[in-house]
Amino acid sequence: MFEMQPVGFVKSAYTDTSQVPKGCGATHQAEGVLEIKSEFEKGLTDIEGFSHLFVLWVFDKVEGYSLLGTPPCDNRPHGVFATRSPFRPCPIGLTVVELIRREGNRLHVRGVDMLDGTPILDIKPYLSSIPEDKLRRGWLAEAEARQK
Amino acid sequence: MFEMQPVGFVKSAYTDTSQVPKGCGATHQAEGVLEIKSEFEKGLTDIEGFSHLFVLWVFDKVEGYSLLGTPPCDNRPHGVFATRSPFRPCPIGLTVVELIRREGNRLHVRGVDMLDGTPILDIKPYLSSIPEDKLRRGWLAEAEARQK
Repeated sequence: MFEMQPVGFVKSAYTDTSQVPKGCGATHQAEGVLEIKSEFEKGLTDIEGFSHLFVLWVFDKVEGYSLLGTPPCDNRPHGVFATRSPFRPCPIGLTVVELIRREGNRLHVRGVDMLDGTPILDIKPYLSSIPEDKLRRGWLAEAEARQK
Repeated sequence: MFEMQPVGFVKSAYTDTSQVPKGCGATHQAEGVLEIKSEFEKGLTDIEGFSHLFVLWVFDKVEGYSLLGTPPCDNRPHGVFATRSPFRPCPIGLTVVELIRREGNRLHVRGVDMLDGTPILDIKPYLSSIPEDKLRRGWLAEAEARQK
């Protein structure tokens, strides 16, 4: 068992999961703020230079997990590790956001899909991408193709 | 505080951090195995369809953290949230690996930069990339340019 203490919290317009865009082709353009605890502010030094960040956070409203689930984008069940389901054995969320600007310990970002008050575990710079032509997207590509 | 229980462990040829490639332009081509606990194997259903995976894991050998640090790739200090430093307030690592094949509860992958025995917290499918022309890479791009 590992104990993880949040380094900050998300300020988001979403207060209920029903408000977060879901399903095939859902895009996340919502703006929000990553508010880092002031004791950790120095850890943000030079973060302004990065256009995109990984945010690791906790699905703190979720109880329990499910190894198989049917995602909003499909009508067939898939393993939890092959989806972004919130019902995970280790309830950690991962979101890529665009950094708009920094104000002290507050990062204004675009692409928030977390609820207001979500605990943030870590922030990392997004350094490189897998080229699109090398990506295979499994059941998701198939589900998207069926819905066309 | 959140308690996180590993869902599996990494099998890697690296037994000491000195063996892991570091510094500007370091590439990770090492193969390894993500061994998921058998009780969670069903959660891997359909993961074979994805070419790349996010692996969230614990820097379990690291004690304490440092809000500013000088990365192997640079001679100037940067904030921990602007680097991949292991000395993080919440010691979680994030690695993108290429999935070679699955054998039951074992995922054979390429791109391992973890030590043997590293606890895995979560695995997620890599679904899309930020286009290279939209990425800014801050101090890292500057450090790379200085070394040319």
